[in-house]
Amino acid sequence: MPQLHFHCAADLAAALTDLPQASNEAMRQAKAHQDQLTKPQGSLGRLEELALWMASWQRKEKPTLNKASCLVFAGNHGVTARGVSAFPAEVTEQMVLNFKAGGAAINQLTTLADAELNVIPLNLDTPTQDFTQSPAMSEAECCAALQAGAKAVPDDAELLLLGEMGIGNTTAAAAVANAVCGGTASDWIGPGTGVNEDGLAIKRDTVDMAIKRHKHVQTNSFDTLRTVGGRELAAIAGAVAEARHRCIPVLLDGFIATAAAAVLIQDNPDALAHTLISHTSKEPGHKRLAQHLDKRPVLDLDMRLGEASGAAVALLIVRAALATHNGMATFGEASVATAP
Amino acid sequence: MPQLHFHCAADLAAALTDLPQASNEAMRQAKAHQDQLTKPQGSLGRLEELALWMASWQRKEKPTLNKASCLVFAGNHGVTARGVSAFPAEVTEQMVLNFKAGGAAINQLTTLADAELNVIPLNLDTPTQDFTQSPAMSEAECCAALQAGAKAVPDDAELLLLGEMGIGNTTAAAAVANAVCGGTASDWIGPGTGVNEDGLAIKRDTVDMAIKRHKHVQTNSFDTLRTVGGRELAAIAGAVAEARHRCIPVLLDGFIATAAAAVLIQDNPDALAHTLISHTSKEPGHKRLAQHLDKRPVLDLDMRLGEASGAAVALLIVRAALATHNGMATFGEASVATAP
Repeated sequence: MPQLHFHCAADLAAALTDLPQASNEAMRQAKAHQDQLTKPQGSLGRLEELALWMASWQRKEKPTLNKASCLVFAGNHGVTARGVSAFPAEVTEQMVLNFKAGGAAINQLTTLADAELNVIPLNLDTPTQDFTQSPAMSEAECCAALQAGAKAVPDDAELLLLGEMGIGNTTAAAAVANAVCGGTASDWIGPGTGVNEDGLAIKRDTVDMAIKRHKHVQTNSFDTLRTVGGRELAAIAGAVAEARHRCIPVLLDGFIATAAAAVLIQDNPDALAHTLISHTSKEPGHKRLAQHLDKRPVLDLDMRLGEASGAAVALLIVRAALATHNGMATFGEASVATAP
Repeated sequence: MPQLHFHCAADLAAALTDLPQASNEAMRQAKAHQDQLTKPQGSLGRLEELALWMASWQRKEKPTLNKASCLVFAGNHGVTARGVSAFPAEVTEQMVLNFKAGGAAINQLTTLADAELNVIPLNLDTPTQDFTQSPAMSEAECCAALQAGAKAVPDDAELLLLGEMGIGNTTAAAAVANAVCGGTASDWIGPGTGVNEDGLAIKRDTVDMAIKRHKHVQTNSFDTLRTVGGRELAAIAGAVAEARHRCIPVLLDGFIATAAAAVLIQDNPDALAHTLISHTSKEPGHKRLAQHLDKRPVLDLDMRLGEASGAAVALLIVRAALATHNGMATFGEASVATAP
């Protein structure tokens, strides 16, 4: 059962006040444990950081990962009618069927990394509005999508992986990033699934028009999501907020998932403390967005697929972090001399 | 049984002539297969590159990974008497016992990544000579170490992970890198297990003296290994050469493993075509060395432990590459529309 409930616009800002914090005590204990393990201190680099991050949010010296939950939210976008994607809008639903049948990249990757995959299609037969003409969603639609995200977080998840599918959603993500971080449309658009120069120009103009139209109301997380987001982006934002209240650490996938989470800093700059960015997407705006959030992605593998695929690969690295943190012998146990 | 035999100095150069090449045909078939999978072409980035690399060396469209073999060679170094390491030399043997008992990082990581771990201690009771005073090894000792490396490559390995353990061996690796790539000692030394400024100065002077003493004979792979290498470095070089003759792709671990492999380009610039660098080590010379070899490491996780730990983490990424390459549905199978 979700802890958060989204009935009206004000509920999101309310959900982002009085956020629980990571446990400094668990972090301290985990660090003391780590420094006894048979390796030079710090020599496992980011594996050590990841283990400490897990320990501090799970509030225990030796974090566990019996259940990693991967949520992939899918939505359709009115702006696709403008020609912002290389693929037709029907592909969103076709890919959802592919996820359910086990044929997509994320199926292979979650099987390998031992994550439970849950695909949540969000009103695919009702695309959002073209946000160059009107807000993408009504208040009620945006609340429903936030709630779908919060509700999808399993009770027993020890780590949450968040990703998406939605033809046209790099354009929505670019508009969201532009609203949250400033700059110009060109700073945030990119080839997405693979548009050509003409497609890129359409994306730039689309984001530019959207920001001009909605800028005056994009002063809080909810209204940014409502005006230029999409259902899957709102659901990711809802899941991030819900995870925070339950102290579940979160791996954000790529550009779209990061943009969806980034809206939350409009209401609370600390809203993403429990999240990491899994990888640097090849989508050019992602590096800029990660810098704006002051987060160094775990991986940089030139991936740009979405579907939480980068998060699933990053889960392998988190598993490596916990395997060493929890499994290694100490200097004392192994009778290995320490540095003098 | 190894294909290569090292009886005299000339055998290494001979082993590096007429090297087998990757299969362009298998690469082409694998690429054609990849482009039918349900994702925008190229959107899995380096995962796609890794699958093609495996396909081209395994000479099959769908590469397999039933047996990944991780070899960790251990050696002791006369230069430790000069104070080049933060840890005492006894730690090499103590860590070998830790490997055998299952308590080290590499044990946890190879278990997670499903690699078979084989630890090969090389005459630990007979350290190499202090190479500021004389060659590190005799011709016979260097041949024996090369042979130990070639012999350790299992008959049925489908991917080889190469790493090492040896107190003092970042100094040997720095000397080797300096001999192969040029520059000054300062370009190649670093904190290793964690020496302070005084230790760093000793390392710099040690490498500097070694290069001055042996430079005139370091004109081929064997003599570089013999004069400033170490047994575990020579064994890695032998394993890399042996793997090439059997078309087994290789994941090199960090700074030391890469330096050991790099000596082979003195005899043949193409000698490392079947190898990848697993990760960028925090040891500062490693980035420079990777650039010299024109190889982009798979990961950058600030690791600097050795033991093949970075290679074992990179194996997880290779497994992700093969899981998607071999497991995903095609557009046709999944009835997903392609880009027009």
